[in-house]
Amino acid sequence: MGSVLNVIKIGGNVIDDEDQLQVFLEKFAALQGKKILVHGGGKIATRLAADMGIEAKMIDGRRVTDQQMLDVVTMVYAGLTNKNIVANLQKFGSDALGLCGADGNVIKAIKRPVKDIDYGFVGDILVDSVNTLSIKKFLEAGFVPVFSAITHNGLGQLLNTNADTIASALAVALSKVYETRLIYCFEKNGVLRDVTDDSSVIKTIKSDDFERLKSAGIIYEGMIPKLENAFLAIARGVKNVYIGNALNLHLYQQGEFGTCLVSK
Amino acid sequence: MGSVLNVIKIGGNVIDDEDQLQVFLEKFAALQGKKILVHGGGKIATRLAADMGIEAKMIDGRRVTDQQMLDVVTMVYAGLTNKNIVANLQKFGSDALGLCGADGNVIKAIKRPVKDIDYGFVGDILVDSVNTLSIKKFLEAGFVPVFSAITHNGLGQLLNTNADTIASALAVALSKVYETRLIYCFEKNGVLRDVTDDSSVIKTIKSDDFERLKSAGIIYEGMIPKLENAFLAIARGVKNVYIGNALNLHLYQQGEFGTCLVSK
Repeated sequence: MGSVLNVIKIGGNVIDDEDQLQVFLEKFAALQGKKILVHGGGKIATRLAADMGIEAKMIDGRRVTDQQMLDVVTMVYAGLTNKNIVANLQKFGSDALGLCGADGNVIKAIKRPVKDIDYGFVGDILVDSVNTLSIKKFLEAGFVPVFSAITHNGLGQLLNTNADTIASALAVALSKVYETRLIYCFEKNGVLRDVTDDSSVIKTIKSDDFERLKSAGIIYEGMIPKLENAFLAIARGVKNVYIGNALNLHLYQQGEFGTCLVSK
Repeated sequence: MGSVLNVIKIGGNVIDDEDQLQVFLEKFAALQGKKILVHGGGKIATRLAADMGIEAKMIDGRRVTDQQMLDVVTMVYAGLTNKNIVANLQKFGSDALGLCGADGNVIKAIKRPVKDIDYGFVGDILVDSVNTLSIKKFLEAGFVPVFSAITHNGLGQLLNTNADTIASALAVALSKVYETRLIYCFEKNGVLRDVTDDSSVIKTIKSDDFERLKSAGIIYEGMIPKLENAFLAIARGVKNVYIGNALNLHLYQQGEFGTCLVSK
């Protein structure tokens, strides 16, 4: 097994706040060792679509990515957001390299098959979607890959893809090459024992604990699929998954960051 | 001296025509050996700015890049255009890697100093702007770098930069590492002896010929600065410069492409 790799996902809330984003990027740049950043979209794409008079298409409450919306998210995620993050990481001394899935063919996806709903240009990631060979070349050459949530199908079609899924697929695939940790950064300090008390962070959750915490109603709603995906990543080879506050990332290498999920 | 490198610049006219772009990209993908693509902007950025209600700012007839316009060109050049070109090159079997100047710190520029006019966020390329070490890593690893016309200043600021200048700066800098040729693709078959006859291509122009052709009025207007820059690139180490029709790129490796500029 090779060296340690940290795959870090940053969500839309931090991206939408220029000051918080700067704080986060400076802490990310200071992290030692091999690392990858995956960023979500933020509200800029929604605002741009509105400015352009493009209406959000919804079918049965689910967002649909038509050609116009694909162009918008490609511009914002892979262009404006990705390049500004890369330029700021360079400022902080990190040799960032912005990527969408088509660059170096790093992530290939398939257009989501139409069953009840046609989601449009949405990409689903498969088991062999991640090109570990290309990504390893970048990492070994000293670059810090920064992934936007756009993939391609290998046939010239770009696809809108969930950033959490990209982060987890990257971590799982690269765990065959590196001792890989997956770190989800969001606005809370971790998984909380009491949702109203931001200091009630549960330090460690084993997969057995997870079932117990679910049954007790301590973990609920949106946190359930997040943790289910995290434990799935662990079952597929990721060493640990961390969930914590983007602005506390400096505590990670001191072992004081958020909630750590472990297999058992 | 290492192997041969072809630096190819494609302009806005071909980018704006989806069919022509496909033809060009297939020919580019088929080119043997190490290569780099530099693409200009096309009219999409102007259209997007209009859709967003952003007025083009002009001072004394010169376009000014304010913050809003910088965001637009970053979205379009480094996002929409760059990623669609990369995805299509992947389709044609070329392992394209889309870059702006901030990615891997490949091209650093300085914000154009304010003299009579403040051009806003426009980047000027200096002698040591090109990071040949990073670009060499990509080329040696088998990637095909695809540059959009966005650079950065190393301090977190993206900058709008002329694509012709990027192509020539890349070719000059990389001529220290590779035997480098610079190929400007545009809509004409080359430098024409008779501007009304597209078959009157001048096959070869030496720097001495250039002065004579200028005096005779055969080379005039917009072609003069283009050729002056080309001869400057040759004087600075580029082996040859070619100017020809984007749709004839397949003739290049047969030695039948456009006009070839040589030092003497």
